[in-house]
Amino acid sequence: MRILAKDIITGMGSGEVELKGWVHRVRELGGVSFVMLRDRSGIAQVVVEGKADLSLESVVTAVGVVADNDKAPGGAELRASRIDVIARAEPDLPFPVNGDVSKIGLDVILDNRPLSLRNPKIRSIFSVQSTIIDAFGSFLRGRGFTEMKTSKLIGSGTEGGTGLFEVAYFDAKVYLAQSPQFYKQTMVASGMERVFEVAPAYRAEKHDTPRHLNEYVSMDLEMAFIDSERDLIALEKELLASIFEAVSSRNADDLAAWGATAPDPESVARSPIVAHDDAVAIAAAELERAGSSSKKAYEISPEVERLICAWSAREHGSELAFINEFPRRHRPFYTFPLNATHTMSFDAIFRGLEITTGGRRHNEYRALLDVLPKFGLKAEDLTDYLNVFKYGCPPHGGFAIGCERLTQKILGLANVKEASLFPRDRKRVRP
Amino acid sequence: MRILAKDIITGMGSGEVELKGWVHRVRELGGVSFVMLRDRSGIAQVVVEGKADLSLESVVTAVGVVADNDKAPGGAELRASRIDVIARAEPDLPFPVNGDVSKIGLDVILDNRPLSLRNPKIRSIFSVQSTIIDAFGSFLRGRGFTEMKTSKLIGSGTEGGTGLFEVAYFDAKVYLAQSPQFYKQTMVASGMERVFEVAPAYRAEKHDTPRHLNEYVSMDLEMAFIDSERDLIALEKELLASIFEAVSSRNADDLAAWGATAPDPESVARSPIVAHDDAVAIAAAELERAGSSSKKAYEISPEVERLICAWSAREHGSELAFINEFPRRHRPFYTFPLNATHTMSFDAIFRGLEITTGGRRHNEYRALLDVLPKFGLKAEDLTDYLNVFKYGCPPHGGFAIGCERLTQKILGLANVKEASLFPRDRKRVRP
Repeated sequence: MRILAKDIITGMGSGEVELKGWVHRVRELGGVSFVMLRDRSGIAQVVVEGKADLSLESVVTAVGVVADNDKAPGGAELRASRIDVIARAEPDLPFPVNGDVSKIGLDVILDNRPLSLRNPKIRSIFSVQSTIIDAFGSFLRGRGFTEMKTSKLIGSGTEGGTGLFEVAYFDAKVYLAQSPQFYKQTMVASGMERVFEVAPAYRAEKHDTPRHLNEYVSMDLEMAFIDSERDLIALEKELLASIFEAVSSRNADDLAAWGATAPDPESVARSPIVAHDDAVAIAAAELERAGSSSKKAYEISPEVERLICAWSAREHGSELAFINEFPRRHRPFYTFPLNATHTMSFDAIFRGLEITTGGRRHNEYRALLDVLPKFGLKAEDLTDYLNVFKYGCPPHGGFAIGCERLTQKILGLANVKEASLFPRDRKRVRP
Repeated sequence: MRILAKDIITGMGSGEVELKGWVHRVRELGGVSFVMLRDRSGIAQVVVEGKADLSLESVVTAVGVVADNDKAPGGAELRASRIDVIARAEPDLPFPVNGDVSKIGLDVILDNRPLSLRNPKIRSIFSVQSTIIDAFGSFLRGRGFTEMKTSKLIGSGTEGGTGLFEVAYFDAKVYLAQSPQFYKQTMVASGMERVFEVAPAYRAEKHDTPRHLNEYVSMDLEMAFIDSERDLIALEKELLASIFEAVSSRNADDLAAWGATAPDPESVARSPIVAHDDAVAIAAAELERAGSSSKKAYEISPEVERLICAWSAREHGSELAFINEFPRRHRPFYTFPLNATHTMSFDAIFRGLEITTGGRRHNEYRALLDVLPKFGLKAEDLTDYLNVFKYGCPPHGGFAIGCERLTQKILGLANVKEASLFPRDRKRVRP
């Protein structure tokens, strides 16, 4: 009967049990071998007489009885009568899987993904990510949202024609979707009212930075009958608090491995909402405060995002801040105007990084027809989209959370690529 | 204070309430108008004095008090003091949104997706699909599975080089993934042991049939430490029973709209497992029984799938059947052999349609090296994949359920495209 590593604890019964897992580490001492055995639940110590002839990463079955040992993980160890090899690992590991992650370079980690994912600390990133995805969906289902799955092959971009990957689709040319924007609006207008999707999104942008991926997991939602982006911000505060709470309770060991904590719900609730123009002024004041003489803040840049978060932490005790009312020229054509110059839009910034863009959308057919030419767009190229509004669409809006960025910032990872299982960037298309 | 259509029921209080939704239907009778108002929860009857000047599909707010009326849905109606138009629909609807679905052709439904999704019966397909996706993940999380999100841009196919869509990725050529096969095996070998993913999958196949999509939602799982495909079949029986139960309890109205029922757990549990060669013989006997003289069954074709399900329903009282032990030549290189001629593989067939393919996989490095040349593959083209096995991989296997096919068969839809929000086939790349 197989038990898991985490079940080997002080005061267990004395019957024979079986562990199955990977040889994480082997140490020989005084005629006995100490084998650290890794499975999906954690690592257990297995003690066996004599020299254990096991290559690291081999998959084995260990059979024996559990005995207390306060030096072992869980306060107990398996005293094995035998260890059988199920699948032997070749001994030429290209880097030490059981080593210190901080000493392995990012390229080595990503080039050797099948092996680096065996490192428990690296793998823990994706346990946290699994919780994030689950908590996102669970929270929204509880609020009457329906999960949808939309096509990633589209005829044209929603954010303009640049930054699209082209796909040879039989005799047609199509593109990989940058977002499910049109589709989630379609579903809102269908009467579904509240929808969400967790799916890949694509940006054919050439920059290679610690905050960009060319393929990422977008956690999107859209909802009907809102008044302004403030309704969305209120929802996102509750949603993020719920995600943080799920990670804190289900992934305590993973957080500890990274020396990380997720924000508490109270701090999320008091996150400030700052209008774009005020945010720029706050950033300028922060620069001045820091004694910087040469720099000025004109618009929301990565540096300004960091400055706003520093200000929010100091003044509001929150690592999260919302910037709203972006100028119209900074937002796509479908963004609902606040006035002649600004929009009902927002970004969420968490620990210095933008994790969300969202806003209320145009919902009136004639207003959309008016606005298209100002963005160089033609109604005849957007017939399917415009039909959503031609036949009655309620006031609505939505936002998306970048799954890898949220994972990165919860755990304090230096690069967003660490939070993508098989990241794609300009040069990386494997493994 | 907004309430939902479903909340307008017999014996409600007498205070003023507000409904928001879409004008589904208007009927004038004896100086009053009856407006059927549709929202995410259902349809309510709103009665207003005089002629309601409302175009169908307009979005409105109706304010009034609830009164019992046993002829109205829910046994009550809203007696409205006023109906305000939020967003007026143009009056030239290309087809009647509130009409009988069976009288609207499939091409009209799909060409006009933004409008056809407003039909409650059509939209209900995707409420069911949302439950399926949720129940799939919930069941697996309860069994220790972790949700993963893997790249859909890959260097080569897992099922051979045919049937791949090519993507222009900066200076490289990559392909849309046919499945997360390699990645889920990587995660199993990493020590995660049990993983699942719900994500798009692509097949560049030219056939246009009621059972094929070029882009579909694949519900994949993979698990370590199995003995044979029988462990997977046992898991799939429990998983499907759990999905059927969730749909039956949460989507009773949607099932009723389609005149459908989901199988009960007991019938799923007694689904037969038939070896491939026996299944072919059973199909031949079924043909003979039906008095067909001209046809013979040699391998598992769509017709044989229907025959096996008819046999399973009659002999085992189950609409589900499993066929296992497929010949080696019918399965990909990574399939674990049962013997010299057959494999530890299986299909699940539900109501006459294959919804799952799965099996145990090769987990030994040297066995994989041996088998590659027989499939015309070279080890040097599969370095990343082979490293998964070179360094210790437990016995494992998995399967995938086609989300649209399962949705189709639960509801009894004639064509799988009806179960895809924005289906892609050889000719269809919009909306």
